[in-house]
Amino acid sequence: MPKVGIIMGSDSDLKVMGKAAETLEAFGVDYEMHIISAHREADVLVEYCQKAADRGIRVLITGAGLAAALPGMCAALFPLPVIGVPLKGGALNGQDALYSIVQMPPGVPVATVGIDGAKNAALLAVRMLAVSDGTLLEKLKAFAAEQKEQVIAKDARLAEVGYQNY
Amino acid sequence: MPKVGIIMGSDSDLKVMGKAAETLEAFGVDYEMHIISAHREADVLVEYCQKAADRGIRVLITGAGLAAALPGMCAALFPLPVIGVPLKGGALNGQDALYSIVQMPPGVPVATVGIDGAKNAALLAVRMLAVSDGTLLEKLKAFAAEQKEQVIAKDARLAEVGYQNY
Amino acid sequence: MPKVGIIMGSDSDLKVMGKAAETLEAFGVDYEMHIISAHREADVLVEYCQKAADRGIRVLITGAGLAAALPGMCAALFPLPVIGVPLKGGALNGQDALYSIVQMPPGVPVATVGIDGAKNAALLAVRMLAVSDGTLLEKLKAFAAEQKEQVIAKDARLAEVGYQNY
Amino acid sequence: MPKVGIIMGSDSDLKVMGKAAETLEAFGVDYEMHIISAHREADVLVEYCQKAADRGIRVLITGAGLAAALPGMCAALFPLPVIGVPLKGGALNGQDALYSIVQMPPGVPVATVGIDGAKNAALLAVRMLAVSDGTLLEKLKAFAAEQKEQVIAKDARLAEVGYQNY
Amino acid sequence: MPKVGIIMGSDSDLKVMGKAAETLEAFGVDYEMHIISAHREADVLVEYCQKAADRGIRVLITGAGLAAALPGMCAALFPLPVIGVPLKGGALNGQDALYSIVQMPPGVPVATVGIDGAKNAALLAVRMLAVSDGTLLEKLKAFAAEQKEQVIAKDARLAEVGYQNY
Amino acid sequence: MPKVGIIMGSDSDLKVMGKAAETLEAFGVDYEMHIISAHREADVLVEYCQKAADRGIRVLITGAGLAAALPGMCAALFPLPVIGVPLKGGALNGQDALYSIVQMPPGVPVATVGIDGAKNAALLAVRMLAVSDGTLLEKLKAFAAEQKEQVIAKDARLAEVGYQNY
Amino acid sequence: MPKVGIIMGSDSDLKVMGKAAETLEAFGVDYEMHIISAHREADVLVEYCQKAADRGIRVLITGAGLAAALPGMCAALFPLPVIGVPLKGGALNGQDALYSIVQMPPGVPVATVGIDGAKNAALLAVRMLAVSDGTLLEKLKAFAAEQKEQVIAKDARLAEVGYQNY
Amino acid sequence: MPKVGIIMGSDSDLKVMGKAAETLEAFGVDYEMHIISAHREADVLVEYCQKAADRGIRVLITGAGLAAALPGMCAALFPLPVIGVPLKGGALNGQDALYSIVQMPPGVPVATVGIDGAKNAALLAVRMLAVSDGTLLEKLKAFAAEQKEQVIAKDARLAEVGYQNY
Repeated sequence: MPKVGIIMGSDSDLKVMGKAAETLEAFGVDYEMHIISAHREADVLVEYCQKAADRGIRVLITGAGLAAALPGMCAALFPLPVIGVPLKGGALNGQDALYSIVQMPPGVPVATVGIDGAKNAALLAVRMLAVSDGTLLEKLKAFAAEQKEQVIAKDARLAEVGYQNY
Repeated sequence: MPKVGIIMGSDSDLKVMGKAAETLEAFGVDYEMHIISAHREADVLVEYCQKAADRGIRVLITGAGLAAALPGMCAALFPLPVIGVPLKGGALNGQDALYSIVQMPPGVPVATVGIDGAKNAALLAVRMLAVSDGTLLEKLKAFAAEQKEQVIAKDARLAEVGYQNY
Repeated sequence: MPKVGIIMGSDSDLKVMGKAAETLEAFGVDYEMHIISAHREADVLVEYCQKAADRGIRVLITGAGLAAALPGMCAALFPLPVIGVPLKGGALNGQDALYSIVQMPPGVPVATVGIDGAKNAALLAVRMLAVSDGTLLEKLKAFAAEQKEQVIAKDARLAEVGYQNY
Repeated sequence: MPKVGIIMGSDSDLKVMGKAAETLEAFGVDYEMHIISAHREADVLVEYCQKAADRGIRVLITGAGLAAALPGMCAALFPLPVIGVPLKGGALNGQDALYSIVQMPPGVPVATVGIDGAKNAALLAVRMLAVSDGTLLEKLKAFAAEQKEQVIAKDARLAEVGYQNY
Repeated sequence: MPKVGIIMGSDSDLKVMGKAAETLEAFGVDYEMHIISAHREADVLVEYCQKAADRGIRVLITGAGLAAALPGMCAALFPLPVIGVPLKGGALNGQDALYSIVQMPPGVPVATVGIDGAKNAALLAVRMLAVSDGTLLEKLKAFAAEQKEQVIAKDARLAEVGYQNY
Repeated sequence: MPKVGIIMGSDSDLKVMGKAAETLEAFGVDYEMHIISAHREADVLVEYCQKAADRGIRVLITGAGLAAALPGMCAALFPLPVIGVPLKGGALNGQDALYSIVQMPPGVPVATVGIDGAKNAALLAVRMLAVSDGTLLEKLKAFAAEQKEQVIAKDARLAEVGYQNY
Repeated sequence: MPKVGIIMGSDSDLKVMGKAAETLEAFGVDYEMHIISAHREADVLVEYCQKAADRGIRVLITGAGLAAALPGMCAALFPLPVIGVPLKGGALNGQDALYSIVQMPPGVPVATVGIDGAKNAALLAVRMLAVSDGTLLEKLKAFAAEQKEQVIAKDARLAEVGYQNY
Repeated sequence: MPKVGIIMGSDSDLKVMGKAAETLEAFGVDYEMHIISAHREADVLVEYCQKAADRGIRVLITGAGLAAALPGMCAALFPLPVIGVPLKGGALNGQDALYSIVQMPPGVPVATVGIDGAKNAALLAVRMLAVSDGTLLEKLKAFAAEQKEQVIAKDARLAEVGYQNY
């Protein structure tokens, strides 16, 4: 039974939002993924969000570009955490989506990550689940340790071959 | 029976959005005014928008600040013209609201006016109604003529008294 | 007899503004299309705008980039609705055109859509005409339903093939 | 035993960050509050973050202005969710803090809320705890219902007294 | 007979644009000053600009805020130099006016000065007239020398009294 | 004897600034062109600017990117009009150069054109010379007429072939 | 004999730049302070910068607002480190000065600090002098320790009195 | 024994930061280069910074993109000068990194250079070392003279071949 729902407004968002799915898979977290447009099928969105918690969804990861209403509307309708991923498309390079997602009015929070930050959105969802899941917490610690090892290995390689040959 | 609905997300928006009401009154256009929050009562908004056209509403004027989802959600739910007024509140001076309202995805247009541009929103609504209302069209022409006269009068006064004494 | 006039300042704008024409055609709305530069032939623009309403034009769709004066000048000269499309060209990616179009002074409104939003401009024009045209209103409802179906179909396909194979 | 840690870089942040505390109190969530500067006492920060999870802290709420390194450093050192509140101080009105907090590199997420959004940060923390706490989930639903009632009441008052007398 | 025309779109611009008049007076340059709105009385503007050169006007100084079309329209209609002063009013602090004035399309230049830079606009007009007026050139050199003396005097005073007592 | 000096800070600016030269040639205005860096050879710049007016230079066209000090320093040292062209290079797309050139302190004006606006800079120089040169004024009027004819011809072609085949 | 020169373009900058002086005094570093305008007395600036190193000046702290050319010109003329302080004055809140100072072309670096960051400019100068001055290095370590103590004391007070009474 | 440490957060930064190394080599300044991530291995960073001064490092050059915490954390931990290089990667083109690096709170300065300004960072480090190293000061003067010669040569070539053939 999925604990995380990944929602995006258009199939053109799949390339970026797919990284969220990959990351959840790497942590062994069940998820479901949907294309639901806040502006083109508001009733579908309302129904999805209102039933999601009862179906066991604990966190929503939502990605949208431009005048990105999807994350905020999910946060209005779903009582548990909603993560928003501003997507880069369009003339303003995602700054429009960032403002549309992060500047929520008091009362309805969206946990916003960086522009095109789908991987971080998934990691944030894992951290949220780890609040009450010791196994996930251990996996997060291992992930952090692995990240650290990778940087150390790169630094060692730099020391070995020099920046010209790296 | 009102032809224009003025919707805003919070009563703190009344000071600006009241100018839209004043302008419609000056043109003799019937309107109704509501405080409806997209993020705090999505179901109320959905119901209002879905029934508005059948009740005779022809144009919606919607004002919102910050991550302003209200205008776009109205445009998603109401099939006739929706005008969006970005409001200035908050640290970003309305640039967030402007982007959240104007950068709509293809298929769902919002007619956006300038930041805090409630008066222009009402004038735009009047122009829309004047598409099929010759009386309103004449009023608009008279309004334009009056605007012109005012500037001419100011210019004459400047010529008379000089800029130091204006 | 055309009801919508599509005006742009340069033939380099045709690629984007052509989408407005396509959309109007899809709705069966008669239109005319002109290249008229506010800065290079102000007298032509003045004459066009002053005669347009009497010729039956009900809405103007105007596209311009950079210091985009065209939409505002049209709104000054034509008494019915003027829609402005900020175009992306130049170093500032259309932010200059957006500000030049949307930030109109009180009294002269331009219905601004997103950067390069020519399709939405046409849909907005259709909505304006639908204020007094029940057939167009039905077409708009059908268009919205079709948009919804397309997203539902995409979501179904995603469920079927997964994000890796979409 | 506190489940939420509220950290800020300076006592000048207390006025805004105090709203996070108030909100947690309203939900009956135990918290602790500290002034810890990432740039002035990095070792204190490191020690705090590394021991916090073992002490029972489940979520960190971190507020900082300017080149706001605090939220990201907390996310680097604390394995559970870190919420970042960009604060408004300084010439750039919080846009610097927003970018410094939200644009985290892949691997280290910060759940960013709007500029000066301390209340939303607390609500987000409550939502995170509610992932595994049914009582909190019920409180969140009640809070949402109350928010809705307030808007409905305001709309009713507007209908009663009109915008001029509101 | 005035050689410089100072044009502004609204009497609310007089406070800033008055500095242009003061500066021209200090250089003994004859000028005229008018309030002419591009958006409210386009025909007045067209007529003014088309006749100005024949009446002896050599340079136009134009000030406007928001979606500032005035300077560009003047440059379209008047063949000699047009100076544009972006004015600060409105939520975007004059950045809208700056973009609307400086980003002119090829073929129609506006000599743009800084936001609220009416004094510099006048000095620029004097420099333009000094191209063919040796007396004005000498006055400009004297003005520059005086500016220099003032800074030198301030530096001397600082040396004398120290920064605490300055 | 050249009346216009075209100055740029680097030979990488030649591609854009060459358009200023082409335009001056089209108007038959003698010019000289130099690469002089404000930051790499301040003494050369000082000497050039201080002697230019006596050598007959009436207008300087200056192009620079990034922290563009060249136009302002020229305006400080040369008493006649200085035109500044912000160049696009670098991560900020010329917004840095625009601010560095247009936001001059009171007393030292730079006539700023749009980003990469070298052609407009030359046209502005021609307008300045035309203040006291009737032949150039006639050429400018002919240029404007030609610009107008070109747009009219494009509009006629659009009417003939339609936007799909243009 | 002063080792640090503090230069600003206008006496209106004294209020901010005075903090640099105070900070240097606190570290016992000799300094001199001058008002020298790049745009109003370029020759004075050139002479000052060219002689400063021989007079014993090791670091220049330069503050300027708007199109801030002063720091870059100092870096062009003075071979040792130049620190630039962007000042906040004007409609763009110091973003213009920041870009004008930090975006220097390759070859001529300016060590830029934050907007109005005069205190940090002085601390940076002290750090530069401490590269070869062990006594200053010890003072810097003591300063850092003191900063840390202050935050710890504030945190202790917060624990004692609570955020409501702080 | 290296006097300069070049630190970057990721090996993807090597292409830009390598220019700092090249420049230091050209001046004969010993340096070391490391990949150390503030967010992925805070303890490694802390240890490196705390020991660097005792190992003889006099200046740190630090490069980072996005929410760039590395330069500020180095400045918090290392008592001598820290130079920050904002890197361009990501949707915001380095503006995020610029704000994250330059807007440091009072007490902890970072000497910030332009976006991707690694060469200038190295030159700034050389200038800092030249404060107490006459040989480096002479090299800097020679470098400046060489820069000047290069521009003069380019200007001569332009005079010879013309801009069309350059």
